[in-house]
Amino acid sequence: MAAVEIDRLVRLLSRLPGLGPRSAQRAALAMLKRRDTLMLPLADALRACAEAVHPCSRCGNLDSTDPCGVCRDPQRDARTLCVVAEVEDLWAMERAGIFKGRYQVLGGTLRALDGIGPDELGVDRLLGRVREDEVREVILALGATVDGQTTSHYLAERLRPLGCTVSRLGHGVPIGGELTYLDEGTLDAALRSRQRVA
Amino acid sequence: MAAVEIDRLVRLLSRLPGLGPRSAQRAALAMLKRRDTLMLPLADALRACAEAVHPCSRCGNLDSTDPCGVCRDPQRDARTLCVVAEVEDLWAMERAGIFKGRYQVLGGTLRALDGIGPDELGVDRLLGRVREDEVREVILALGATVDGQTTSHYLAERLRPLGCTVSRLGHGVPIGGELTYLDEGTLDAALRSRQRVA
Repeated sequence: MAAVEIDRLVRLLSRLPGLGPRSAQRAALAMLKRRDTLMLPLADALRACAEAVHPCSRCGNLDSTDPCGVCRDPQRDARTLCVVAEVEDLWAMERAGIFKGRYQVLGGTLRALDGIGPDELGVDRLLGRVREDEVREVILALGATVDGQTTSHYLAERLRPLGCTVSRLGHGVPIGGELTYLDEGTLDAALRSRQRVA
Repeated sequence: MAAVEIDRLVRLLSRLPGLGPRSAQRAALAMLKRRDTLMLPLADALRACAEAVHPCSRCGNLDSTDPCGVCRDPQRDARTLCVVAEVEDLWAMERAGIFKGRYQVLGGTLRALDGIGPDELGVDRLLGRVREDEVREVILALGATVDGQTTSHYLAERLRPLGCTVSRLGHGVPIGGELTYLDEGTLDAALRSRQRVA
């Protein structure tokens, strides 16, 4: 039906998270209508990004410099280390603007069935860094999922002998969240971590 | 926070229909993980598509040849003409595989308030083509929206003097629905229950 060039573009676009075959087609047509202002700039941006952006050799963040902007920033506390599963989690923390230490990106969580063990997540590299940088606190900022919690427990065990403080993010009611939509696990965690206000 | 290359990519991706800032960021990260199998091929596909694909000078379809594949196909009946608003509507009809005539893409529907009148939609070109190709039937395959129906009525009035049959898609099309989202069965029913209006 359509040109092979369009078919190929739609097929590649539909592999992006959040785009199915139909929305990929809509995206392709939207770009063909804005060839010079969207389609060609996007082609350039993809190539520039693919060439310039690489994982930071220290923390695993993605940036066009190595070490990345976070690792190079002398204002940031190298002795507080936040461990996240993925780069998007690091970015979520940075968007919040609440953390002034450094990061370690695991690149996933422990999943024995998928063959993802401590080696795949660079656990030895994490331990080495904790020793080398004389880290005082490791904050395990992993999701409150089965995989995330399994990984947190494992890392806590491995980090304990090093003598640094190890913490995990608090569980509770999300800000803006309504109780009626929360699951029992969250409510249970929220009740147990209740804080005295009077 | 992130590299300017990533920021620029995310900004462009978030201009695609169906992607907001968060999903654009997810898409960018997914591509950075598959640089050689997804990101660079997508950059190439965008450029190839932008260079090769252009509107057909006869019907307005997008293809890498001019006239387009539909207009060049000698198996297709040049004397039955299906008028659609957008290229995605033409593709929706082609996906259903139920129509063996030719198309005319208007590029929109009449919207006086937005300055879209008969000239913008190439109505004279449509009338000329109906005369030239001795078209026997014009099928108005416009959405069952206010704009679509206004445009259908207008076109029916303009086409009436030419002596060809003018029909519109049957009311299998849900009111308020757009062609590009319809399933093949609905499109098939709509084509078969088309009604003569002039």
